[in-house]
Amino acid sequence: MIIPTAPFPAPRAAAASSGPTVAIDIGGTKIAGALVHPDGTMTATTRRPTPRGVDGDGVMAAVAEVVAELSESPLWASAVRCGIGSAGPVDASRGTVSPVNIGAWRDFPVQERVVAELAAHGADLPTVLAGDGVAMTAAEHWLGAARGHANALCMVVSTGVGGGLILNNQLHPGPTGNAGHIGHISVAFDGEPCVCGSRGCVESIASGTAIARWALDHGWKPSDPASDAPSGTEGGGADATAAGVAAAAAAGDPIALAAFDRAGRALAAAIAATATLVETDIAVIGGGVAAAGDTLFAPIRRHLAAYATLSFVKDVQVVPAMLGTHAGLIGAAAAATMLLPSSSS
Amino acid sequence: MIIPTAPFPAPRAAAASSGPTVAIDIGGTKIAGALVHPDGTMTATTRRPTPRGVDGDGVMAAVAEVVAELSESPLWASAVRCGIGSAGPVDASRGTVSPVNIGAWRDFPVQERVVAELAAHGADLPTVLAGDGVAMTAAEHWLGAARGHANALCMVVSTGVGGGLILNNQLHPGPTGNAGHIGHISVAFDGEPCVCGSRGCVESIASGTAIARWALDHGWKPSDPASDAPSGTEGGGADATAAGVAAAAAAGDPIALAAFDRAGRALAAAIAATATLVETDIAVIGGGVAAAGDTLFAPIRRHLAAYATLSFVKDVQVVPAMLGTHAGLIGAAAAATMLLPSSSS
Repeated sequence: MIIPTAPFPAPRAAAASSGPTVAIDIGGTKIAGALVHPDGTMTATTRRPTPRGVDGDGVMAAVAEVVAELSESPLWASAVRCGIGSAGPVDASRGTVSPVNIGAWRDFPVQERVVAELAAHGADLPTVLAGDGVAMTAAEHWLGAARGHANALCMVVSTGVGGGLILNNQLHPGPTGNAGHIGHISVAFDGEPCVCGSRGCVESIASGTAIARWALDHGWKPSDPASDAPSGTEGGGADATAAGVAAAAAAGDPIALAAFDRAGRALAAAIAATATLVETDIAVIGGGVAAAGDTLFAPIRRHLAAYATLSFVKDVQVVPAMLGTHAGLIGAAAAATMLLPSSSS
Repeated sequence: MIIPTAPFPAPRAAAASSGPTVAIDIGGTKIAGALVHPDGTMTATTRRPTPRGVDGDGVMAAVAEVVAELSESPLWASAVRCGIGSAGPVDASRGTVSPVNIGAWRDFPVQERVVAELAAHGADLPTVLAGDGVAMTAAEHWLGAARGHANALCMVVSTGVGGGLILNNQLHPGPTGNAGHIGHISVAFDGEPCVCGSRGCVESIASGTAIARWALDHGWKPSDPASDAPSGTEGGGADATAAGVAAAAAAGDPIALAAFDRAGRALAAAIAATATLVETDIAVIGGGVAAAGDTLFAPIRRHLAAYATLSFVKDVQVVPAMLGTHAGLIGAAAAATMLLPSSSS
C-alpha cells in the first residue's frame, strides 16, 4: 500500500481536529474505504469488488461491509467526519448518485444510506458526497501536483474525461457537485455529435476511447502481441486502445502521433478556456491516458501556447497528477475536509 | 438620469455601512463618476469625454476632475469606499490598466493615482479596481437580471465580447480581475484565427463586428438610408453593422438570419461550457448586440438546448441584462462592495 507522507499544511479544517476522516470511494469496479488522517496517512484500508447483477440494495451491501470493517479499527471512535467519493453523475444537493458504470444505482440516496450505516456503528458524523472528479481535485490540491495553487483545474483523462476546480484555495463543486466537468464542454461547436447529445465535446475528441477510435478510423493498425495473428489484422483482441496508440506514437507511427496531437489540441483549447473563464494557473492531468507521458503532454503544451494567449492565461502550466492508486480515498477525505465548516469537526 | 430604485437586499457589506461608495467608470469614450448609495441610488453623477491625443497624465487629469467634482458633494465626507471600473485588460493584482481603447495607458497605475486623488480631497478610502466585465456582472447581480442567482455568467456582446462570473453568491474576478473573459474561449479549436492569437474564439464569431463581417462575406447587402445610393451598393457609409444585420434579420433576410444563428450557436456553446465548468444557472447578456432582442436571444436559446444536455446544466437560462446607461457606475460600486471585507467599511 502506498501511504503518502505529508510534510505540508493539511486541508483547511484538519488542523482544528486531530481525528481521522472516514473515506469511502465508490467506482464501477471497486468500493474502497479507509481512515484518512490529518497528516495524509491512511489506516484500515479495505476494498471489495463492486457487486454485479444485483439491485441497488445489493450494491449498498458492499458499502455497508466496508463501513463495518472500518468500524473495527481502534481509531474508529475518534473519526470526525465522513467523505464519500463516487463515480458520476452525482447530485450532491440531494445526496444521490447515478454512476454510469453502476446500473443498479439511479438517483440512489447513497449519502443518507451511508449516514445510517455510520450511525449503526455508533458514529454520528457530518458527511459529504462528491463526484470522483471533484474528489481527485481535492486530493491533488492537498497532497499532489496542485498543492499551493489557489486556482487549479484537475482532470482525469481515461475512458472518459472528468475534472474539478480549486478556486480561491477552495474546492468548487458547484451546487450539484459536478463543476469542473471539462469532458463535456464543446471545443468544436460545429463538430461531431457526442454521446451526451452535444457536439465537439472534449471527451469525444480526447478520451482514450476517442483517441483509439480516431487512430483506427485513420488507418492505424494495432499490434496484437497476445495472439498468433500477424500484426495489422482486423483483431478485436488486438491492442486497439489508447495505450496501444501511445506505444505506436512513441515508436514514431505518424497516425498514432496525429491522434495524440488532435487530443492534445482539444485538451489545450479546454485548458485555455478554463483559465480564461476562472483564472486557473495550472492544469493537473491524471488517468490512464496521462500514463502516456510526453506522448500526451508534449502536444498539449505545444498547442497551449497557441490557445492561451491573453496576458493573464499565457503562463498556465500543465503537469501530471501525482496521486495514483489511492487518489479516490485521499480525495473523498480531502473533499469532506474542505467542504465541511471547521466548526463541525 | 435613470436612477434605479432598489426594493431588495443590498450587496454583502453594504448593510453594515450606510455611507455611499465613490464610483468611477473609465471607458474609451467617457469617464464617469457618482456617489452610489447602499439602496442603489446615485447622486453627484458627472462625466466627461475620455481625452484624446494626450499622454497618460492627460487622461488621468480627466479622472482627477471627476474626483474633484464628486468631492464637492455634501455627502463626500460620508463615503466609505471607492470602486473603479475600467475597460480592459486590467491587472487588479497590481492596480494597473491597459485599455485597448485608451492607447495612452499601458500598465497605467490608475488605482494608486485614484487613491492619491481621493487623499488630496480628504478621503482615505479602501479602493477596488475591476475590469468592466466584472463590474457589469456585479451590477447585474446587485440590481439586475442576475439578482438572487448564486452562480451566474454575465456577458457584454458588443464590438467585443466580455463578461464576468458570480460564484457562490460572490464576485469571482480571479487574481488579476479578468475572470469571465468569455469572448476569448475557443468554441472552434480548428477555427479561424482570432486577433488574440488563438482560434475560434467566441468574440471572433459572435461580436457585433464578427456578425457584420460574416454577413457581408456571405453576400448580405447593407441598406443605406442616409445616402442617395441605391440599397445594396458597396458602401462603407452604409449600415454595415450588427444593428444593420439585426434589422435585416428582423425583416426576414436569410443571410442576416444565418449570421445571427451562427453567433447564437457560438454563444450557446460558450454558455453551456461555462455552466458545465462552474455550474452557473443563468447567463445575462447586455451590450449593443443584445439590443437586437429575440433576433439574438431566440437562436441562443434554441441552440442551448443542443449544447447544454447534462442534467446539471440543462435548465440554464438566458436573459437580457437589465441595467443600461449606468451599469458601469453601479458596477464599479457593487464590485467594491462585494470585494472589500465588510470590516473595512
